Amino acid sequence: MKIFSGTSNVSLAKKIASNLGLPLGNAKIVNFKDGETYVRLVETVRGDTVFVVQPTSNPVNENLMELLIFIDALKRASAKSIVAVIPYYGYARQDRKSKPREPITSKLVANLLTSAGADRIMAMDLHANQIQGFFDIPADHIEAMPILAKYFLDKGLSGDKVIVVSPDVGGVKRARALSEWLGSGIAIIDKRRPKPNVAEVMNVIGKVEGKIAIFIDDMIDTAGTITSGVDAILDRGAIEAYACCTHPVFSGPAIERLKESRVKEIIVTNSIELPDDKKLDKIKVLSVDLLLSEAIRRVYNNESLSELFEKN
Amino acid sequence: MKIFSGTSNVSLAKKIASNLGLPLGNAKIVNFKDGETYVRLVETVRGDTVFVVQPTSNPVNENLMELLIFIDALKRASAKSIVAVIPYYGYARQDRKSKPREPITSKLVANLLTSAGADRIMAMDLHANQIQGFFDIPADHIEAMPILAKYFLDKGLSGDKVIVVSPDVGGVKRARALSEWLGSGIAIIDKRRPKPNVAEVMNVIGKVEGKIAIFIDDMIDTAGTITSGVDAILDRGAIEAYACCTHPVFSGPAIERLKESRVKEIIVTNSIELPDDKKLDKIKVLSVDLLLSEAIRRVYNNESLSELFEKN
Amino acid sequence: MKIFSGTSNVSLAKKIASNLGLPLGNAKIVNFKDGETYVRLVETVRGDTVFVVQPTSNPVNENLMELLIFIDALKRASAKSIVAVIPYYGYARQDRKSKPREPITSKLVANLLTSAGADRIMAMDLHANQIQGFFDIPADHIEAMPILAKYFLDKGLSGDKVIVVSPDVGGVKRARALSEWLGSGIAIIDKRRPKPNVAEVMNVIGKVEGKIAIFIDDMIDTAGTITSGVDAILDRGAIEAYACCTHPVFSGPAIERLKESRVKEIIVTNSIELPDDKKLDKIKVLSVDLLLSEAIRRVYNNESLSELFEKN
Amino acid sequence: MKIFSGTSNVSLAKKIASNLGLPLGNAKIVNFKDGETYVRLVETVRGDTVFVVQPTSNPVNENLMELLIFIDALKRASAKSIVAVIPYYGYARQDRKSKPREPITSKLVANLLTSAGADRIMAMDLHANQIQGFFDIPADHIEAMPILAKYFLDKGLSGDKVIVVSPDVGGVKRARALSEWLGSGIAIIDKRRPKPNVAEVMNVIGKVEGKIAIFIDDMIDTAGTITSGVDAILDRGAIEAYACCTHPVFSGPAIERLKESRVKEIIVTNSIELPDDKKLDKIKVLSVDLLLSEAIRRVYNNESLSELFEKN
Amino acid sequence: MKIFSGTSNVSLAKKIASNLGLPLGNAKIVNFKDGETYVRLVETVRGDTVFVVQPTSNPVNENLMELLIFIDALKRASAKSIVAVIPYYGYARQDRKSKPREPITSKLVANLLTSAGADRIMAMDLHANQIQGFFDIPADHIEAMPILAKYFLDKGLSGDKVIVVSPDVGGVKRARALSEWLGSGIAIIDKRRPKPNVAEVMNVIGKVEGKIAIFIDDMIDTAGTITSGVDAILDRGAIEAYACCTHPVFSGPAIERLKESRVKEIIVTNSIELPDDKKLDKIKVLSVDLLLSEAIRRVYNNESLSELFEKN
Amino acid sequence: MKIFSGTSNVSLAKKIASNLGLPLGNAKIVNFKDGETYVRLVETVRGDTVFVVQPTSNPVNENLMELLIFIDALKRASAKSIVAVIPYYGYARQDRKSKPREPITSKLVANLLTSAGADRIMAMDLHANQIQGFFDIPADHIEAMPILAKYFLDKGLSGDKVIVVSPDVGGVKRARALSEWLGSGIAIIDKRRPKPNVAEVMNVIGKVEGKIAIFIDDMIDTAGTITSGVDAILDRGAIEAYACCTHPVFSGPAIERLKESRVKEIIVTNSIELPDDKKLDKIKVLSVDLLLSEAIRRVYNNESLSELFEKN
Repeated sequence: MKIFSGTSNVSLAKKIASNLGLPLGNAKIVNFKDGETYVRLVETVRGDTVFVVQPTSNPVNENLMELLIFIDALKRASAKSIVAVIPYYGYARQDRKSKPREPITSKLVANLLTSAGADRIMAMDLHANQIQGFFDIPADHIEAMPILAKYFLDKGLSGDKVIVVSPDVGGVKRARALSEWLGSGIAIIDKRRPKPNVAEVMNVIGKVEGKIAIFIDDMIDTAGTITSGVDAILDRGAIEAYACCTHPVFSGPAIERLKESRVKEIIVTNSIELPDDKKLDKIKVLSVDLLLSEAIRRVYNNESLSELFEKN
Repeated sequence: MKIFSGTSNVSLAKKIASNLGLPLGNAKIVNFKDGETYVRLVETVRGDTVFVVQPTSNPVNENLMELLIFIDALKRASAKSIVAVIPYYGYARQDRKSKPREPITSKLVANLLTSAGADRIMAMDLHANQIQGFFDIPADHIEAMPILAKYFLDKGLSGDKVIVVSPDVGGVKRARALSEWLGSGIAIIDKRRPKPNVAEVMNVIGKVEGKIAIFIDDMIDTAGTITSGVDAILDRGAIEAYACCTHPVFSGPAIERLKESRVKEIIVTNSIELPDDKKLDKIKVLSVDLLLSEAIRRVYNNESLSELFEKN
Repeated sequence: MKIFSGTSNVSLAKKIASNLGLPLGNAKIVNFKDGETYVRLVETVRGDTVFVVQPTSNPVNENLMELLIFIDALKRASAKSIVAVIPYYGYARQDRKSKPREPITSKLVANLLTSAGADRIMAMDLHANQIQGFFDIPADHIEAMPILAKYFLDKGLSGDKVIVVSPDVGGVKRARALSEWLGSGIAIIDKRRPKPNVAEVMNVIGKVEGKIAIFIDDMIDTAGTITSGVDAILDRGAIEAYACCTHPVFSGPAIERLKESRVKEIIVTNSIELPDDKKLDKIKVLSVDLLLSEAIRRVYNNESLSELFEKN
Repeated sequence: MKIFSGTSNVSLAKKIASNLGLPLGNAKIVNFKDGETYVRLVETVRGDTVFVVQPTSNPVNENLMELLIFIDALKRASAKSIVAVIPYYGYARQDRKSKPREPITSKLVANLLTSAGADRIMAMDLHANQIQGFFDIPADHIEAMPILAKYFLDKGLSGDKVIVVSPDVGGVKRARALSEWLGSGIAIIDKRRPKPNVAEVMNVIGKVEGKIAIFIDDMIDTAGTITSGVDAILDRGAIEAYACCTHPVFSGPAIERLKESRVKEIIVTNSIELPDDKKLDKIKVLSVDLLLSEAIRRVYNNESLSELFEKN
Repeated sequence: MKIFSGTSNVSLAKKIASNLGLPLGNAKIVNFKDGETYVRLVETVRGDTVFVVQPTSNPVNENLMELLIFIDALKRASAKSIVAVIPYYGYARQDRKSKPREPITSKLVANLLTSAGADRIMAMDLHANQIQGFFDIPADHIEAMPILAKYFLDKGLSGDKVIVVSPDVGGVKRARALSEWLGSGIAIIDKRRPKPNVAEVMNVIGKVEGKIAIFIDDMIDTAGTITSGVDAILDRGAIEAYACCTHPVFSGPAIERLKESRVKEIIVTNSIELPDDKKLDKIKVLSVDLLLSEAIRRVYNNESLSELFEKN
Repeated sequence: MKIFSGTSNVSLAKKIASNLGLPLGNAKIVNFKDGETYVRLVETVRGDTVFVVQPTSNPVNENLMELLIFIDALKRASAKSIVAVIPYYGYARQDRKSKPREPITSKLVANLLTSAGADRIMAMDLHANQIQGFFDIPADHIEAMPILAKYFLDKGLSGDKVIVVSPDVGGVKRARALSEWLGSGIAIIDKRRPKPNVAEVMNVIGKVEGKIAIFIDDMIDTAGTITSGVDAILDRGAIEAYACCTHPVFSGPAIERLKESRVKEIIVTNSIELPDDKKLDKIKVLSVDLLLSEAIRRVYNNESLSELFEKN
């Protein structure tokens, strides 16, 4: 077994390798002046089971191509089995045609990974569970929900005093799952434009008054939905608001918005590495390295993964 | 262009062919005494674009194998292009692993259809839109929503006096879409077991008091969720309850439950053919034949499909 | 190594597992009320070589789909290698186009199994040996002929007093093979309609007078060919008639016909499980469990299979 | 539509093209001094449906590779559709494993043709009909049986005075089919070695005394089976013996044996081109050019092929 | 026929479309804030043959992913045929393993394009001709050599007074081809390090004294090889030096080096769009739009492409 | 691990097996009278990693088909992994379209090998390194250059007194590589026809006067290029001329030309077996058996191959 890392989240990969008592595999990754990516494996991988850790976060096209080239190099160097460990799976939201003549990029990416030579995929908190079905190779799905839930449980944020809020109608199932961990109820923000050219209205479905609200989503991108949701919930009498997600995409105005928002704390994981200029005091990063290294260990030893995510 | 039909919903296929001014293609379909299915095309299909209409409803395995064998016969008889028209796509709910070591049968079916030789798929109101992405061949997605919505609009069931209800947290997006057609709000049934070995509680999220409730789902299977949802909503002060869905699966106790339910009317389509013993007075069947024949005409003539589903 | 069983012939699978000193693998197989088949592996199969025993006998479409879904579940649960053990391979007779615009369902089934993810196939007495070539994955072909032949040898039915009869011109090679085991001659029934609208005539090619006739076929389906063949042979002076086959399909009027036929004994194997109402006194069932468990053992241990079928 | 020819049977290809009113396509085929085959298309084939006529007769490896290279050149030159017309399909007899650890070369060849880029195959009188199923691309099967049968009917060789003889147990179905055309009975040669190290005995199953025997096989290779069969049949009182087959492979001692045999006439087709030194007076060659050109015309025009082989 | 353009070289695509009398196809291409690329076809492409113009120049990963997503959208929108027009094929130099454990990214890209759904490729002056063979779909290879050669011929730069120089041993064949157009001789720069840690020496193989040197390469990347080659050649007595290439990659210090070099003129094509800050007076850009539009027209009309590149 | 040999170079295969302490695998290879090739594995290969040694030298089509059939037999006999060891890869020169409407036979062969079931390829000194990229399975490239270079170094043929000559512009990189081993300069033969219908002129680029010339090519086919190159070089004052290549194709007039040439010695390897009538005194054969057996050993043991070809 060998653990390699692309350039997208080296610190996570290092922790994973270290947990497994392994050095990080030695690969030379260069970005040439003409923009081409070059990968060379400095050590032999003949007959090895190789895990490559590479979340396809921003810059997603660069990180994805780097991963595909890495896989090609591993395949041609006769690795026995190649596992792409993708803690954040970019393009996950383009998982269906919501308008005519759109691509389904999420499926395209699955096909590209398979075509390049991946034998197995390990991903975390996919935007839709159906993406697992985009693959015909085995795809292990890792859930960070227990880590997030335990954080709130440890803080005593559970039971009737809490309301779990889905920031839109697409995320209700995720809110439902967290609410079961916490023993709380759920509410939903239903943002809607009554008529064309009229301002959007934030409807809150469910009772939030007097509750501590915990927003949950799989990712926070520009943070617009979350921050306006927080406002709506507090305006309707919620006591305070937390937000949590697995993937801190934090693009464009996200950090600015979060900084100025009335949200008390934002809990995320390190599936995507946060650069220093995105580290706010109220952003709490929980590490998934132990979760991923244990998952890798079990895959390698043919042990069951599902026990990892059980409630008790 | 030729239209053929499997044995699953011949009356729908006949209407479709008739709308297009075509006779139904002549095929001999036999179920042998040993259970094997036999398909022979009685007329030539060399060079033809062939549409085979076959919802994979109950008995789903029989209907699916019949469709696969039909496609094999068409391929070997040198059809130019084979389009599987599947108004109801069986196994759609097994579209992800919700427990460890489950299959993703919905993807398996997509692979089987492709492997048999289908060049294109036409399906209606898939349980999850992501199933389109399970196919690498073009997959046209037909929506019956406009037909259902117009039925309620024609009845004057719209605006503030109506509340669209999702019978579970998984169907909120569908409820949201219908509510936009009707200009109404939404509510959600959140069925939950507080503790192990305690009876399930029906939470209603959103306000339903004094409203006319319209439940919507993609399919009604055993009708347990809908009928207990209707009870919950009426108990909380809703005036009356309608239910609608695209696919009337109606298996097991469904008809008995609907008959005894306080639901006022159940609106469905003929994506699945209802046998006579399942036709209740309060079940209203809207036909999708014009929708499908127009879709087929457009596909054959390379015209845009998306206009078919626009709101205006 | 793990042995799992579909629902088609559990008693055979149990014997096979027991011969190998293994428990039968734990899987939950449900047939839902709407006709959909659900398979979940209750125990882990990560890294295991798994054999799934499932003859695709009547109801063939149900059994085949169950097998395909089983394979999908095994693949996604990361089995190392999946072997479909199919003692009776349904649709084997649709192995060529005997009329224009027919499917070749036997090849279709081979493609479906491969597409679902089977790594290897083990089948017994295929209707045509060429079906092995329908697969590009390794396909082990098990022959029950030695078991049938030894039964007759043990009874002293061999040599010149016996004539092996093929019930039609398509089965002469099989009759020839049994006749070599028994040291006997062969005869053939050539059923033919002299002119349209004239009754079929049973020609017997070869001398049967004064002989004990043993009919052989790969399967007995409705038993019409065998029972009218027995009549023809006895009418031409044969002393008595036995019939044997590997696969007791026994559909439609088969049992009634055999009961009333002058055939003395019908020897079959348990490749297909006989329900109690099909067990006649004159039907003798020989078990293939030892043959199959030994074949599985050899495949698993990379030992030669061919020695299993040698005459001495 | 364009017709090209490999080097294997140019005279047949020329007749086919001429029947269709077309010149033979212009291709440069060179056999280099180092044994490599070179094919270049001298004229454009962009967007054309191209038929390449190339029986894979002796030297089969040369002819097959030439065909594969031809197909590659056509594919890369952007032919719209490539049809391999293979009047004699070499390696057809290796269509199953008759011994352990044999290849199934007949399937391998099907895979190679598909892999090279053939879109469709047209073959004549395949050794086993199941070979059609080795292809997943459409495979048209042309039958020369009507041509052979009509020759005998025209000669008045039909009815009770004739007996159709299969030279071995594997060819009984073919004999049965010709006997239906001629309204005659059938007999079978069952060559068998009673004990090891004892001379083979020619058993004749069926009555041949006083009859005119017509042997039929799909191909005559070294002619040993046919000529010893003729002896056996004449020794048992048959009046005279004819032999017919579709494919005159005639390898090794074939011509010598036929010359010295008591067979009266051998009727073959020009699926394989006979060199001058293999043309005996008693060998009658019937041409299949009209049959093949008509089949090609129908495929190109999407007309039914099956009418071509009907009895009336 | 429709012509679409990615964002990489819109001005070239517009000229091509305009030459063909077509508007550029309407597509919405967005680069989201999180780095994901979004493509939506604003107009229908059902049944159309679509050409997408997109050189995969710097930023190569962005441009390549955009092209792959574009192809996916076209495929799912039911385009009849998708042709990727790639005037500059990025990653062409990674076309073999020159060190152990390298990828062959050039083949990977070919596989990705095919996997995404391209039906045909059109590329120009590939770094190695063998890259055509990386594709199993038809790959048209366009040569800009005639355009470059005619430029020099028109200037009177031909015959004995000229020497064509290959800047390294890998490009001698290209130099040889240009020298045949110009009727001139060739020379080669053989850069070599005599011993480790000793400065590289520029050997000039062939006679350059008193000649006008024309360097040729397929691309100029950082311009180091060309500019040091120019120095070497002038130092050895050449009168003046021109440089030409098809693809002006011009990355890193290229423009600075060229500006300061003694090279008289650099002739390139617009396969890659030059930004304004890379336009030097001594850089002459020849347009390939007419060549490409004519090639597209011929492909669409199934006319021969090869005449386009003939010397006379 | 098992080593098998086709019929093309049995003596090399025997040496390789012997180096590895293994007997050659037992296979029956027959060339039937009708030209068909038959391969049967006499010993079991279930679960084995099998290396088949078969250079596809003249007769290339026979040898290639034999190899493909061998692979099919191994696959169906359940070998765990099949490695085709192809010391001389026939058709390597047809690796691109040098004229319109040519095949790329070198890629076709790669596809055929993969389609037949090869899991890995081992080839030596491919005509172009890009052919490695024609494969998507791992392709190990073995270089005989160190063996050739050491021969000259041992003879003292190195340094300034030697000039390495490429017989044409396509082979300059190879000459460059040998010249680095020897510490010598390079020269190139540029054969050119000044005008149509005028005799070819041999230009020598680079200085050869007073030097010992060593010609190098990957293969010597008809030996015309080499022998006329030797004349040119000696006429221009070179002292003496050696020639070396990896693959002694030696077809047509090769031996005659070499015999009469002024070349002093021709150094080749036994990648192709030389028949006795091609063994001249001045042809020196260096054996690659140790190189190949070491490469096989390393592949089997998952050790690095690249060290094998390092200069020190």
